[in-house]
Order: sequence, then C-alpha cells, then structure tokens
Amino acid sequence: MSGWLTVVGLGPGDDAMTTPQVSATLQAATDVVGYSKYVERVPERTDLTRHASDNRVELERAQFALDLAAGGSQVVIVSSGDPGVFAMAAAVFEALEQGPENWLSLDISIQPGISALLAAAASLGAPLGHDFCAINLSDNLKPWALIETRLRLAAQAEFVMALYNPRSAGRPHQFARALDLLRECCGNKTLISFARDVSKPSERLQTMTLAEAKPDMADMRTLVIVGSAYTRRVGRYVYTPRSVA
Amino acid sequence: MSGWLTVVGLGPGDDAMTTPQVSATLQAATDVVGYSKYVERVPERTDLTRHASDNRVELERAQFALDLAAGGSQVVIVSSGDPGVFAMAAAVFEALEQGPENWLSLDISIQPGISALLAAAASLGAPLGHDFCAINLSDNLKPWALIETRLRLAAQAEFVMALYNPRSAGRPHQFARALDLLRECCGNKTLISFARDVSKPSERLQTMTLAEAKPDMADMRTLVIVGSAYTRRVGRYVYTPRSVA
Repeated sequence: MSGWLTVVGLGPGDDAMTTPQVSATLQAATDVVGYSKYVERVPERTDLTRHASDNRVELERAQFALDLAAGGSQVVIVSSGDPGVFAMAAAVFEALEQGPENWLSLDISIQPGISALLAAAASLGAPLGHDFCAINLSDNLKPWALIETRLRLAAQAEFVMALYNPRSAGRPHQFARALDLLRECCGNKTLISFARDVSKPSERLQTMTLAEAKPDMADMRTLVIVGSAYTRRVGRYVYTPRSVA
Repeated sequence: MSGWLTVVGLGPGDDAMTTPQVSATLQAATDVVGYSKYVERVPERTDLTRHASDNRVELERAQFALDLAAGGSQVVIVSSGDPGVFAMAAAVFEALEQGPENWLSLDISIQPGISALLAAAASLGAPLGHDFCAINLSDNLKPWALIETRLRLAAQAEFVMALYNPRSAGRPHQFARALDLLRECCGNKTLISFARDVSKPSERLQTMTLAEAKPDMADMRTLVIVGSAYTRRVGRYVYTPRSVA
C-alpha cells in the first residue's frame, strides 16, 4: 500500500466534536504525528505508532511526516481545532514547498475540524452572527506593528474579532497593549468574551465590557472574542444580530 | 420532560463531517425545524416531526421553534455548515430578544458544525493559514456601501477573505463590482478560489488570479476565498504561509 499524509483537526477537546471522517482516518493510519497533547487524544493501537513532539516545531514535524509518507507510511498529523486555522496544514505546505520534488506527487489531504472560534462562539451564543475576522496575536511569525494595524482596520470595518493566542508567558505585555488599542478604537462599552478550555469539563466563559477587561483574563488556552458595536447580550447569551440596521 | 431548543450545524454536506454531538442531539429530538433542504438531511423517524420551511424566513422559523420548545417539545433547528456563521443561531437570539419574557428561561444551546469556510479551505489546501476574515456579500441585511468599505479595509489589512453568498439571481451585478474592487485593492496577481458544493460528490474547485476571475464563476452554492499577497500554489494546493516574512 502506498503512503499518504492527512492533516486532521480533532476539534476543541470534546471527542463528541471530532468528525466521523477524522475518526475513520485515524483508524486507517499507521503513524500519528503531532504535538504531544494532541497525540495523546488518539487512542493507542498495536499497529499505530504515535510520534509526539514538542510545541513550536511545526516545520520539522511537517517534514518528518512528509518523509514518513514518502517512505510508504499512512500518516496523520493531528491538530487541535481545525488544522487550517493557525495550525499544522499551512506548515505542511511550507515544508512541501521547500522539500524534494518527489514529495509533490504524494497523496496529501486536509480534513477539517471544529475550530476554537466556532466552538467558543457556540458556547457563548452567536457572537459571529455577522461579518468577522480571526487574528493570531502571537508575534512569533509577524511583527507586532502589523498586528496593531490589523486590529485598527478590523475595528474600523466593524468586524467581530476572534483573537487566537492572546497572551503567553513569553510576551505578557502585548495583550495589555491590545486591550488599550481596542478600547481606543471600539469604545469602552464594546463587549469582550474570554472563552477558556472550550468544550472541556474545565470550560470557563466570561463576558464583560472592554472597560472591565483585564490582561490576565487571557492565556494561551483562551480564545478572545471582541464584539462589534452591535454585539449584545440577551439572557445569558452573547450575540451579534445578522443586520446592522 | 421539559422542552429545549438546540441549534446545530450539519456541516457542509458530507455526513461524515457531521459531529457525533449533533447526531446524538438529532436522535433525542421530537421536532426538527429548518430550511427544507437541510431538514431533508435528517433521517426520518416515527417519533420525529420534521418542519420544513422556505429559505429566507429565518426569524419566523426561530420564533416557531422557540414556541414549540416553550410548549415542552425537544426541538432542533438545523443549519448547513456552522449555525453561528451567517446561519440560524443569530436569528434565534433575535427572536428571543423580541419574544415573551418566559422564553428567556428556556434551555437553549448551540452546537457547532464544520463551516463552509473550513471545509472549502481544507479542500483547497490551507488558504486560511494566516489572519483572515469572513464577509457575507449579500446586501439583504446591510447596505452594499458597507460591504465595499469592508472589502477595502480587509484588503488593506491583508486578510485572506472568505466571501459568503457571493452572487444570487436577484443581484447578479454586485459580485462583478466586488471583483473590480478587489482587483483595484489587491492587484491582478492575487489568487482567488471558487469552491462550489464542497464535500459533496459535485464538489468543484477552481483557483486563478483575480485578473482571470469572471463574475459567473460564483453562485449561492459557492464559497469564494480571496488570498492575500502571500497566498500561493504548491503543487495542486493553495496555501497561505503562517509567516509574513
């Protein structure tokens, strides 16, 4: 049997949100590759080799998986959420672009998963009911000035914003700066939601105005959703109406 | 047993992309409410009443479902894709806001699905690998001028853009206008992808430069993805690198 590589999304944490398509692909695999916390979510089998790696080594991990597939293995790379949203799918194509010519004839596919932004929105209500954007707040792969520019333009466009990787131990001050900028561009009354560990037993949701938001409400396990001027509460829910009228 | 209302996303079309969570909810329901094409995707059962309605009557459909749940039924509203992205979840909260006080104590929840944008991105490769936005091009619920403003700001922010409802029989000229605007703001060489009937047997994917794109390549069953300046091809795939360097 010839090798293949499929990049799958396991969803945000609850196994009931992993699609049957992805589960079937995992069943057919000989090798699973990924960040250790995601590889651990794949059930052990005697005929499955699990290759767990550290976080932040995406490109090497992608190269390793492509090499395994080129050697005839049936390989799955696992991502949390959706593999195409700030996750492993883009890293695989970067590795493919830089790799040997014969990798281009490999059978490579991507299978979507429930992304953190969809799961967080569902738990909160319907904050993404109107036009929205998704911005990765980490400056590992782009300059911080560009992130600030995008936040300003997104506010001007009145997009609801889903903010990934809002705050890490290595850069604790940037999210404070982002909050100041958002207060300046969107106004103090705009709603902001912090969704941590969505769909897991430890899920925690907090919604407040930008005036009340504090930087330490977010960490790397938090998805932040900043509303537009239209985003509001009804009962215990947060939603953005479909219409701007 | 007391009533409840859950709004679920069936995913883009392939049943293998419907989450086990959503399938279990449909099994537990007494009533399914939705646009006829989506209700048809729910298997018939003797103890399940299927209420199929016309498209574009979202608010009445939401009110009908809330009323059924208030009367003690176990009600599911079905959306295609994800219910929170240009679908029924926001309409339910609009109806809740306008409805009788007692609806606020109802057990209402949202269960995410694989959205068209995630499924289209996966079929194409990884075009959403960097910051992105989602814009509904229909001017049924917002002025066309606002749509143009958002396209301009999104281009300025270098967001990859997922464009929903690009073109309908009732407004065939607006997508031509949008393409002209995108050529002006993003340049002729920017890649654009048309993903029609994603995940269905009739799936069709086309990628080209903005210079080559024609308005009639899109219809209401097409999700359009406009790349950033960094979006490119590798082999048969389209992807946006994680880094802007």
